[in-house]
Amino acid sequence: MSKPQASIDPSIVPSREACAALDAADPLASVREAFALPPGLIYLDGNSLGAMPAATPARLQQALQDGWGRQLVGAWNGAGWIGLAPRVAAAIAGLIGAQPDEVAVADSTSVNLFKLLAIALRLRPQRRSIVTESGNFPTDLYVAQNLTGWTGTHRLRTVERAQLVEDPASVLDDDTAVLTLSHVDYRSGAMHDMARITAAAHARGALVVWDLAHSTGAVPVDLAAANADFAVGCGYKYLNGGPGAPAYAYMARRWHAEARSPLAGWFGHHEPFAFRPDYTPAAGATQLQCGTPPILSLVALAAGVDLMAGLDAAALRRKSLALTDLFIARCQPWLAEHGFELLTPLAHEQRGSQVSLRHARAWPICQALIELGVIGDFRAPDILRLGFAPAYLRHVDAWDAAERLHQIMRDGFWQDARFETRRQVT
Amino acid sequence: MSKPQASIDPSIVPSREACAALDAADPLASVREAFALPPGLIYLDGNSLGAMPAATPARLQQALQDGWGRQLVGAWNGAGWIGLAPRVAAAIAGLIGAQPDEVAVADSTSVNLFKLLAIALRLRPQRRSIVTESGNFPTDLYVAQNLTGWTGTHRLRTVERAQLVEDPASVLDDDTAVLTLSHVDYRSGAMHDMARITAAAHARGALVVWDLAHSTGAVPVDLAAANADFAVGCGYKYLNGGPGAPAYAYMARRWHAEARSPLAGWFGHHEPFAFRPDYTPAAGATQLQCGTPPILSLVALAAGVDLMAGLDAAALRRKSLALTDLFIARCQPWLAEHGFELLTPLAHEQRGSQVSLRHARAWPICQALIELGVIGDFRAPDILRLGFAPAYLRHVDAWDAAERLHQIMRDGFWQDARFETRRQVT
Repeated sequence: MSKPQASIDPSIVPSREACAALDAADPLASVREAFALPPGLIYLDGNSLGAMPAATPARLQQALQDGWGRQLVGAWNGAGWIGLAPRVAAAIAGLIGAQPDEVAVADSTSVNLFKLLAIALRLRPQRRSIVTESGNFPTDLYVAQNLTGWTGTHRLRTVERAQLVEDPASVLDDDTAVLTLSHVDYRSGAMHDMARITAAAHARGALVVWDLAHSTGAVPVDLAAANADFAVGCGYKYLNGGPGAPAYAYMARRWHAEARSPLAGWFGHHEPFAFRPDYTPAAGATQLQCGTPPILSLVALAAGVDLMAGLDAAALRRKSLALTDLFIARCQPWLAEHGFELLTPLAHEQRGSQVSLRHARAWPICQALIELGVIGDFRAPDILRLGFAPAYLRHVDAWDAAERLHQIMRDGFWQDARFETRRQVT
Repeated sequence: MSKPQASIDPSIVPSREACAALDAADPLASVREAFALPPGLIYLDGNSLGAMPAATPARLQQALQDGWGRQLVGAWNGAGWIGLAPRVAAAIAGLIGAQPDEVAVADSTSVNLFKLLAIALRLRPQRRSIVTESGNFPTDLYVAQNLTGWTGTHRLRTVERAQLVEDPASVLDDDTAVLTLSHVDYRSGAMHDMARITAAAHARGALVVWDLAHSTGAVPVDLAAANADFAVGCGYKYLNGGPGAPAYAYMARRWHAEARSPLAGWFGHHEPFAFRPDYTPAAGATQLQCGTPPILSLVALAAGVDLMAGLDAAALRRKSLALTDLFIARCQPWLAEHGFELLTPLAHEQRGSQVSLRHARAWPICQALIELGVIGDFRAPDILRLGFAPAYLRHVDAWDAAERLHQIMRDGFWQDARFETRRQVT
């Protein structure tokens, strides 16, 4: 564990001109042009919905006009749809330290988490509990609650993050079948030490299911190095796969033979088109495919993943940390004065790719920022969440975003009555 | 039960000119122009993948350019994505005799069947078996097999169709929690009497889950009149929602209060964006939503459903029967001579919207037909399956398809060696 830092050295804060110079020298600079970003917008919500790759509309049009429209059902073979989910899965495998046969692209993150938790419970039949953090993403909590509620013989136990981070083994016991955690916390942006927690769980005889929703495409993920068992992840955040893009599921090879999902469909069958009456699982993670995949959404996901798979992961991480360091360093001098609390860890090894600020009036502040062209999001009850997607954000964006936040706090712009109205956001 | 017919009266077979006249007078004739169909193609596989509505590409482009590209995360509200699944669900409800709050659009047919079977088992806790037809669609069998295999305390019992049709009560017993059936059989096109079977199941204390994959958009479905409990259905066949379009699930109001799916996600929560740690199901069928819906595929589904929702269901049914009658009547004189067996019932009340022919060499015959511009499909091991989507097929298409089938049988074209090679089809 690194020693907690009190602050980032303010001397690292460059001028705006120096930020522009950093951008000019950035090896990822040209990647921004591969995205369709409205001019002038500073988009700090790529951890909710990633930006649209510029190539996506043409790929969708091809799938529609040349695929569905011209070839109709023949496009399953003629346009390669039948092999599209495995192809995208293989590309995602390369981003998370997995082998192609360990990843399936299918369904939503929620549905995949259900499959893997159920598989894990069956692999530890003498144990009765799923353990997670009390602050895990709600859908992860709901999946586990409903699964345990349905079996009637299992229970969900939630633990506090501080204890988990301090001593992972202490939150587990001989009844723990599976520990499930988000690698990067959706609210604070704090990142777990995947290898350390996985090792602690294994030492207690438990399995682990990681949720990589806020990790893949933004922070380093190496499931093999972490000796991970299972993971799920999201296609529409840092993979830029489009709204509600299909999700993915990882299953380490050592579980392939034993694993059997309660939720099986024909695309997870060994021979889907033989129309056999009995289910025989496909090899590897492919058994985690279920029904017919949503091809149009999958075509968009492929465009996003193809783009991300071509980037240098180490360069992405360096830039992500540079951007969040820069933003934090610029805001630090006045955060407390304006009622903010920084939730995101300063230690690099504990930080995802976002900066989260707690403020009692986070909602109107977020709305005021949006009106000034800085799109972040609000997470109930009091968090302003700013995601820094390193693939398409520039140093000047981080600089300007901090400047505008300071501006609306200084001049009280956020107190305008029109920012009070709540609307749904995702 | 109607008396079995030996054949269709051959005197009903019109000339091709008369077919063209029927098309000219067809109240649905203009609907064909709302689809993007390649010129000259006779598409008899709309029961595998429905044709593309002409409006779909523009709607997808709008969702991409004006939605995702311009509004980014704001499009969830600004482009109405947040309400899209419920809106499409309400439109589908109108097609199946349901109320808007009884239908959810979500996930795949397989995943929805899993949810509803699991719910049904919990509503009949003293009963241990799921009953289905041995010839039900494979994914339906797989879902039930894996669910019962996973609980360990339930079992799947398969029954023969003939006995089920003869006397539905006879295949059920006091241990039957739920009967699940396809309304229209995917291979033969035979249609069940939904109201009669549902009543028989209820009389034995069992619930029923209907699979409407081959029904909605092509044959009349009235779930309320049938006193149905649960149903699932597919967006990409007669609803023309695009490859792998999201599916739907129906849950009668009388089960809303008690039902609890084992598979729950944040989009099925009462307040998804409150980020509450505890799951509270949304009202009605909305609790059957699970993770974030695949918006791009959902936009395409909306285009298909909007088109179908504007059509007269009775006119669709009349035309479907006219087309299949015409095709059968034209083929009847020579079917046996060329080794075919008609699997599709002649009685209208037992017929879906397809004609299925059994033939030992169905595969090469199907390929030869495709080469002549008639796209049907093959279902293992020996079925040539021809779907007649009444929204976009003409009488002349049925006439020409029969003519070409006769032609390739007469001249032995199907015996060409190039038609032997198998490829995957869906």
